[in-house]
Amino acid sequence: MKHTRTQGLLIVISAPSGAGKTTICKRLLDEFPDLYFSVSCTTRPPRKGEKDGRDYHFISMKKFKDRIGKNEFVEWEEIYGHFYGTLKKEIEDLTEKGHDVILDIDIKGAGNVKSMYPEGAFVFIMPPSVEILKERLRKRGSETDAVIKMRFDRAMEEVKENERYDYVIFNDILSDSVDIMRSIYIAERNRRPRLQARINDFY
Amino acid sequence: MKHTRTQGLLIVISAPSGAGKTTICKRLLDEFPDLYFSVSCTTRPPRKGEKDGRDYHFISMKKFKDRIGKNEFVEWEEIYGHFYGTLKKEIEDLTEKGHDVILDIDIKGAGNVKSMYPEGAFVFIMPPSVEILKERLRKRGSETDAVIKMRFDRAMEEVKENERYDYVIFNDILSDSVDIMRSIYIAERNRRPRLQARINDFY
Repeated sequence: MKHTRTQGLLIVISAPSGAGKTTICKRLLDEFPDLYFSVSCTTRPPRKGEKDGRDYHFISMKKFKDRIGKNEFVEWEEIYGHFYGTLKKEIEDLTEKGHDVILDIDIKGAGNVKSMYPEGAFVFIMPPSVEILKERLRKRGSETDAVIKMRFDRAMEEVKENERYDYVIFNDILSDSVDIMRSIYIAERNRRPRLQARINDFY
Repeated sequence: MKHTRTQGLLIVISAPSGAGKTTICKRLLDEFPDLYFSVSCTTRPPRKGEKDGRDYHFISMKKFKDRIGKNEFVEWEEIYGHFYGTLKKEIEDLTEKGHDVILDIDIKGAGNVKSMYPEGAFVFIMPPSVEILKERLRKRGSETDAVIKMRFDRAMEEVKENERYDYVIFNDILSDSVDIMRSIYIAERNRRPRLQARINDFY
């Protein structure tokens, strides 16, 4: 008996700012060309070098609000007046075709995504220590101490949210973190229920 | 606040004969010198090259039966008149010291080990296909067709037991299987509950 294709795996990755998430995602995507990156929608204008459909779907405020009204987002949020959101359709079109998808989302949105996709693998990137977190936030630019303090307090609040996640990576040495991330992906693909179709075919 | 050491991780690996488990275990142990291999007890005499305390604890039938009586084994079995068993103490002395332990056990014993150590990671090695399983069993020696048939039937029965395990590895290409095995180990070490002590220390 042959089986319907197994659904793709959803990997959700979040981190407080200063944890170093972006590089880890990029390295994982470089190693696995079959892994898709879920592209978010945003109302903010593209920055230099950003490409529509690759970095974000750049859409108008009207269209964004329209999609909120139609309940098309798994999660969305407003940051400094700009809207960011993840379309259900974006994820499900891919996973239903059997593609694995990585979704980089804000910590606030993860609870909602988890309740919708409980079978996903949720990974939280942690800064290695409070000291290093402080240092990384300080290096980010020429902000005032008050802004840095605000960001630090926010990051410390966000760190607590690791409890919602299945895996935690302390981003100490980047190459180690990348190895852990790829290991999580490979291990999750080999969970027995995900191989059920191949197991059934074996008999 | 500093915490008591986290318990070591227990990885249990099983396979029907002809799946290729031994090499995968060996490679994992080669890569991770801190990973311990749980040594079983047996009443069979050592084969050439086998070393007491490394390959097995070679013990007398009297001592083995005495240990069964004292309920010292997590699992034991009799194969062709020889006894094989895993000591609880062997596993727990190591995991309580924070060492990770790999335990290579017969499929029949896994149910018992799982009920005692539900937090362990249970990995089942599958032959890539029925045809390859047949071929590998045939290559094993100069047995009669009847013996090969018996082994094949037993292996097919054992394959069904994959349902008790958390992960399945189809041992198609050895280097891929080794990579999956190490990935499972690394991923399991990064499950959030296993890092709770370090997370608590972070705050």
